[in-house]
Amino acid sequence: MNVLIWNEFRHEKQDEEVAKIYPEGIHGALKEFLQTDDINVDTATLDEENHGITDEKLAKTDVMLWWGHLAHHEVADEIVEKVQQRVLEGMGLIVLHSGHFSKIFKKLMGTGCDLKWREADEKERMWVVDPSHPIVEVIGEYIEIEKEEMYGELFDILAPDELVLLSWFEGGEVFRSGCTYRRGHGKIFYFRPGHEAYPTYYHKDVQRVIQNAVQWAKPTTRTFSSYGNAKPLEAIKPKA
Amino acid sequence: MNVLIWNEFRHEKQDEEVAKIYPEGIHGALKEFLQTDDINVDTATLDEENHGITDEKLAKTDVMLWWGHLAHHEVADEIVEKVQQRVLEGMGLIVLHSGHFSKIFKKLMGTGCDLKWREADEKERMWVVDPSHPIVEVIGEYIEIEKEEMYGELFDILAPDELVLLSWFEGGEVFRSGCTYRRGHGKIFYFRPGHEAYPTYYHKDVQRVIQNAVQWAKPTTRTFSSYGNAKPLEAIKPKA
Amino acid sequence: MNVLIWNEFRHEKQDEEVAKIYPEGIHGALKEFLQTDDINVDTATLDEENHGITDEKLAKTDVMLWWGHLAHHEVADEIVEKVQQRVLEGMGLIVLHSGHFSKIFKKLMGTGCDLKWREADEKERMWVVDPSHPIVEVIGEYIEIEKEEMYGELFDILAPDELVLLSWFEGGEVFRSGCTYRRGHGKIFYFRPGHEAYPTYYHKDVQRVIQNAVQWAKPTTRTFSSYGNAKPLEAIKPKA
Amino acid sequence: MNVLIWNEFRHEKQDEEVAKIYPEGIHGALKEFLQTDDINVDTATLDEENHGITDEKLAKTDVMLWWGHLAHHEVADEIVEKVQQRVLEGMGLIVLHSGHFSKIFKKLMGTGCDLKWREADEKERMWVVDPSHPIVEVIGEYIEIEKEEMYGELFDILAPDELVLLSWFEGGEVFRSGCTYRRGHGKIFYFRPGHEAYPTYYHKDVQRVIQNAVQWAKPTTRTFSSYGNAKPLEAIKPKA
Repeated sequence: MNVLIWNEFRHEKQDEEVAKIYPEGIHGALKEFLQTDDINVDTATLDEENHGITDEKLAKTDVMLWWGHLAHHEVADEIVEKVQQRVLEGMGLIVLHSGHFSKIFKKLMGTGCDLKWREADEKERMWVVDPSHPIVEVIGEYIEIEKEEMYGELFDILAPDELVLLSWFEGGEVFRSGCTYRRGHGKIFYFRPGHEAYPTYYHKDVQRVIQNAVQWAKPTTRTFSSYGNAKPLEAIKPKA
Repeated sequence: MNVLIWNEFRHEKQDEEVAKIYPEGIHGALKEFLQTDDINVDTATLDEENHGITDEKLAKTDVMLWWGHLAHHEVADEIVEKVQQRVLEGMGLIVLHSGHFSKIFKKLMGTGCDLKWREADEKERMWVVDPSHPIVEVIGEYIEIEKEEMYGELFDILAPDELVLLSWFEGGEVFRSGCTYRRGHGKIFYFRPGHEAYPTYYHKDVQRVIQNAVQWAKPTTRTFSSYGNAKPLEAIKPKA
Repeated sequence: MNVLIWNEFRHEKQDEEVAKIYPEGIHGALKEFLQTDDINVDTATLDEENHGITDEKLAKTDVMLWWGHLAHHEVADEIVEKVQQRVLEGMGLIVLHSGHFSKIFKKLMGTGCDLKWREADEKERMWVVDPSHPIVEVIGEYIEIEKEEMYGELFDILAPDELVLLSWFEGGEVFRSGCTYRRGHGKIFYFRPGHEAYPTYYHKDVQRVIQNAVQWAKPTTRTFSSYGNAKPLEAIKPKA
Repeated sequence: MNVLIWNEFRHEKQDEEVAKIYPEGIHGALKEFLQTDDINVDTATLDEENHGITDEKLAKTDVMLWWGHLAHHEVADEIVEKVQQRVLEGMGLIVLHSGHFSKIFKKLMGTGCDLKWREADEKERMWVVDPSHPIVEVIGEYIEIEKEEMYGELFDILAPDELVLLSWFEGGEVFRSGCTYRRGHGKIFYFRPGHEAYPTYYHKDVQRVIQNAVQWAKPTTRTFSSYGNAKPLEAIKPKA
């Protein structure tokens, strides 16, 4: 399986505190726990040519991860359209945290994707509400994160196909934190945690959810559907 | 309630056969059965200035209907964005037949919205599969249309929030013909029938479904949600 | 419209504190704000003959409310089956609070319907997550209840057709508090709040949600579907 | 993985024509294509003691298949409750064809599960409508079955969590033929085809769907959720 981690990679270069937490970038931290004998992981970042996303790379990617925040508007529309096309063809897509406002996520949702937020060293507790879902394999009743950015409802997404995780925040909000969607032949998972100023991607349960999600999101082997003008499969009676 | 019917209005001007069926345009035929003492119906068409969609008209519209086919690409992106914004604010949207390929529907779905099709004077039978849904009030077990264009699966939409009607076609295909979606504060209904070369919009059951859908899609009275930075509602403990 | 409020009506007779809060019983308090010129409200309680549910009463009921807690097991199976049958025929059903463990709700869900709970004078904040739903008409971003019993996930229901309200609890839990389901020709709404020891049913927003739910749950006028052996609607070719 | 195939096994003993098609019983035919090095398949039938379902067998079963028709009422309620409990604990359940009327399926649905039917040597074409679902891995756009019993809408189930396959029937009906549900910690798949008088379970695509479904339905490894009285996870402020 080929996984491609896309990271904006700006906070890590601009902010010393973030660089201390993620010295190899957020993509580096994600790669660290995703790479296995069976999973070949590649990375791409905003400031590379074509944001590091070539047609060849995209064509062979089974599951893509997306982390962005400061510079969503700098991502070229052409690249966004190619990623969308690959999702419709079957590629899995895992959108992380502030990726909720990325061009690709908004394009796939059809909504504004806005939400409430707050940076206040706040406790988050994500409760599992779909206990049979493979994305929460081996996860307990909840995942506790000592300090995270708050994201609160109303989250201007659409009702997910499957709601897997629900967050409780110390400051009084709730959030739909683990949401699955299907678009065309591809599967999408939005996963809330991962503010750059906290070491969230070192949390074992957060890592496990992402590992599970990669397995869940891999393409289903099928020939792509045919569209357009179609000959009848059965005889049609002439009408008056 | 204010209803706005948008129609491309090209077939009716270019094709004599279509003009015979819909002498006042498809929008005229729709208006005929939607206008009541309680529902004020306005119409707009592609070749009017701004496609007939002014900001004031849009702001007061509760439910909009959309029929287009030949000239989806001629609809200005700016207008499409305004319509999307109004849906997110709460306006209902009913997309009819070939409107599946309109910019506004594709934008709200996030998929390609492609399908199979065939013009062959074919019988369509739409089965009710959500019997308690207000959109099928007083409709029987199915709606039969003697001659229609075929639309077949795979329909590259997303799984609807509610699947209300399923079509059987003489030539061997099926289709998800009555689908509801929610986007932001607005409700959307996609309704399949209505090829311009057939008198489908004079069919009493088809009319009734559209009348029901207008009632169902009207906005829910609520203040629009607030987004962005949010003060805590509860005290947050200082962390180490 | 005919509404029937069913209440176990035991706490109010056995516990002085509860009797002070609901001197006319919980059913009396519910009736108070549901009765209007257009809505005829009747009540029924466990200790009446047939639990107050006669065939005639049930046959004409459009929407039924159900509150029970101490004595779910005392409700006769025969009555439960009749109520289920009426739901399948189109009657709306609103299950309140501890009704989650009632025979009728468990029968309609097919699951254990268990949950976590705690009585601790706890603050509950119910967030609206389906902003276009008629059940939250005129409700703000959330409903705050100063003191309530806690219900926490995992709630062993099934994923609701529509998730309308999500609760945050002071003690660290979340809960799917406003859930819609469809069974046969009938609509069901589960609404969490309403512990007998608190004056929750005097809360204006709680009342409004229940009023909205009654409107939403009323039957859709249709003839009941036919089942069983069916003659073909189209000719079937003889096969070899 | 341990798979348990439950078959009523009456038609095969009473009807010579059926016995010719399924000389080892329907369970024998299912076992034939499900057994692999990784999947240990056991079978059980109605007329065995406890219908062949012991507590030990059930406890170790990962996925159960259920085929019944003539004698649903002969299945002991006690056994049905044990199977339901195992589903809530995480066991997958695949209900085949006339199993729609089995006690276990009705109990898990909460509806009447009725439908239209006809035996008329009729062509069925099942269209894939959820192209990314693992249950349709390697399946084409549709599965064609030359002769099958017709099942028609309205199917008195509830809206499935995922609708994977939709049937077209020669005689004019449609049917939701591949439906997933989740109950408690377990996954359920209803799959329509398999009338005893046709060799449907020898159809390669039908076999593949069932093989895929077994993989999809296997339990997710998690500790079972805890329910009941719960201590607060956060401090609760004393109220006035």
